[in-house]
Amino acid sequence: MKLLIIGAAGMIGRRLAETILKTGTLDGHRVDALAAFDVAPADLASTAQVAVTNLSGDISDRATVDSLVAHRPDVIFHLAAIVSGEAEADFDKGYAINMDGTRHLFEAIRAQGPDYHPRVVYTSSIAVFGAPFEEKITDTFLTAPMTSYGAQKMIGELLLNDYSRKGFFDGVGIRLPTIVVRPGKPNKAASGFFSGIIREPLAGLEAELPVEDDVRHWFASPDAAIGFLLHAATMDTAQLGTRRCLNMPGLSLTIAEVLDALREVAGDEALARVKRVPDETIREIVAGWPRDFAPDLALAAGFTADPDFPSIIRAHIRDSGHASG
Amino acid sequence: MKLLIIGAAGMIGRRLAETILKTGTLDGHRVDALAAFDVAPADLASTAQVAVTNLSGDISDRATVDSLVAHRPDVIFHLAAIVSGEAEADFDKGYAINMDGTRHLFEAIRAQGPDYHPRVVYTSSIAVFGAPFEEKITDTFLTAPMTSYGAQKMIGELLLNDYSRKGFFDGVGIRLPTIVVRPGKPNKAASGFFSGIIREPLAGLEAELPVEDDVRHWFASPDAAIGFLLHAATMDTAQLGTRRCLNMPGLSLTIAEVLDALREVAGDEALARVKRVPDETIREIVAGWPRDFAPDLALAAGFTADPDFPSIIRAHIRDSGHASG
Repeated sequence: MKLLIIGAAGMIGRRLAETILKTGTLDGHRVDALAAFDVAPADLASTAQVAVTNLSGDISDRATVDSLVAHRPDVIFHLAAIVSGEAEADFDKGYAINMDGTRHLFEAIRAQGPDYHPRVVYTSSIAVFGAPFEEKITDTFLTAPMTSYGAQKMIGELLLNDYSRKGFFDGVGIRLPTIVVRPGKPNKAASGFFSGIIREPLAGLEAELPVEDDVRHWFASPDAAIGFLLHAATMDTAQLGTRRCLNMPGLSLTIAEVLDALREVAGDEALARVKRVPDETIREIVAGWPRDFAPDLALAAGFTADPDFPSIIRAHIRDSGHASG
Repeated sequence: MKLLIIGAAGMIGRRLAETILKTGTLDGHRVDALAAFDVAPADLASTAQVAVTNLSGDISDRATVDSLVAHRPDVIFHLAAIVSGEAEADFDKGYAINMDGTRHLFEAIRAQGPDYHPRVVYTSSIAVFGAPFEEKITDTFLTAPMTSYGAQKMIGELLLNDYSRKGFFDGVGIRLPTIVVRPGKPNKAASGFFSGIIREPLAGLEAELPVEDDVRHWFASPDAAIGFLLHAATMDTAQLGTRRCLNMPGLSLTIAEVLDALREVAGDEALARVKRVPDETIREIVAGWPRDFAPDLALAAGFTADPDFPSIIRAHIRDSGHASG
């Protein structure tokens, strides 16, 4: 089995690759080759079983994408994206990567002809939704993005559904909750502070909280995200019909509840490192984001959420311990 | 005031142009110039007041679209599209015109710079929805197209919302019901028979009915469509917020009810000219189309529907009488 991960140097992409390399299998099938693509090489090492090829380039260039698909991977994970904050700041770059790059991938697959029909796993986002919301967003609620990133992700979903319906490939789109706790440095996503207010205090550093304590949001851990991706790569898609993009299960908490969980796991000292520094730009972006979901279709299709928020924090402590040890 | 109609040679585009030329005004403003663009020239005549320019070309060519926008029309009506049946049969052509052409238009406007901010009226379609449906589709129901045409129209909506939100222009999208009675010859739209079963019997000809009598669908007249377009061109868009694409009001009838209206207006003789010729391809496409709506936002925004179906048939008789006399 041959796999391609587009966006393999990102936090989720790298973790996905490492998870697959650890077992050398996907859904019981032996993985022989993994192509790891990103704007800069992911520098992943081959294992005894899996030959890793590290590739880099720009998916807004069609020829680059054609070359990625030319070796006909059985499963393609498309995780590459310009994140929300940057797509809002650089309109052209957001559309070039998030919309054109995705379309190039789908066209490159189609250009291989009718005897090639890979599984394509596409990471979408809850940013496809925009306020005002249902109390809990259901599977038939309007997608009305309020950012360019959300619009671009939704266009990718429409293309994925249409190309799958036409039989060009077998697509599954997963709308990820906000992933916490992201390790490492902040990226340009407007959602970055949701990780920062956990990660920085645990590392003994101060973190800025730009929104009010009563802001409610929808979360999943990196482990849960990898679980979603692996399940999307191997599930039976017949059950999805023509609606192949699903709201992933997650946890809905207010900032106050997130901070309670931080105190439960790491004590008052950690909590005291969270500084309230209101930021009107971030506050406005976040106000347009969903708060809670009833992800019935995804649950019925076998996707599973984290058990609770303290376990998300403990998993981060475990992972960052590994990283520093 | 300068206007541009893209798709001016089509049934709705031509009727819109003729309506504007008749009064020489739009919302009380004097119209000085009307550019009428289509794949073939619309051949509209200037009036004493309005200078008409007939233009032709291909909107999938960016330079062509740039030249249309260069004279900075105050209002742009974008009605051009590859219809559903043709977009399903020719995947590349559908995306080139319906998706790329629309994006070219929006980019051409943006390229004019921040001192240009036209009203853009975009005709979308109820084909952005796909089964299974709510009993009556509300304004917050999921758009899940089941045709390439529907996907392309929905991508145009997402772009229109995002470009409007970013302040590049002031867009309004109107999701038209199926327009009946279309005059003239059938086009390649899978919905063509809805007009055919009225138009042909009234002209003394036989018409084929490819679906069952209990099929329910959502209709508006050409007059109602022109009303929607003129209202969308002149309404206050502040009330729409970031959701600028609306389900237009219409009438929901089964085929049996449509045929009852035909008999009411034109008698048993007309009804007898409707021949049941089941077509599995059309039946499947139509099964994925919406049947009924609760278009609350559009009604609140001042859009108005036809009073009843017999009045739609009588309007067609009046119009076709004008045409032949």
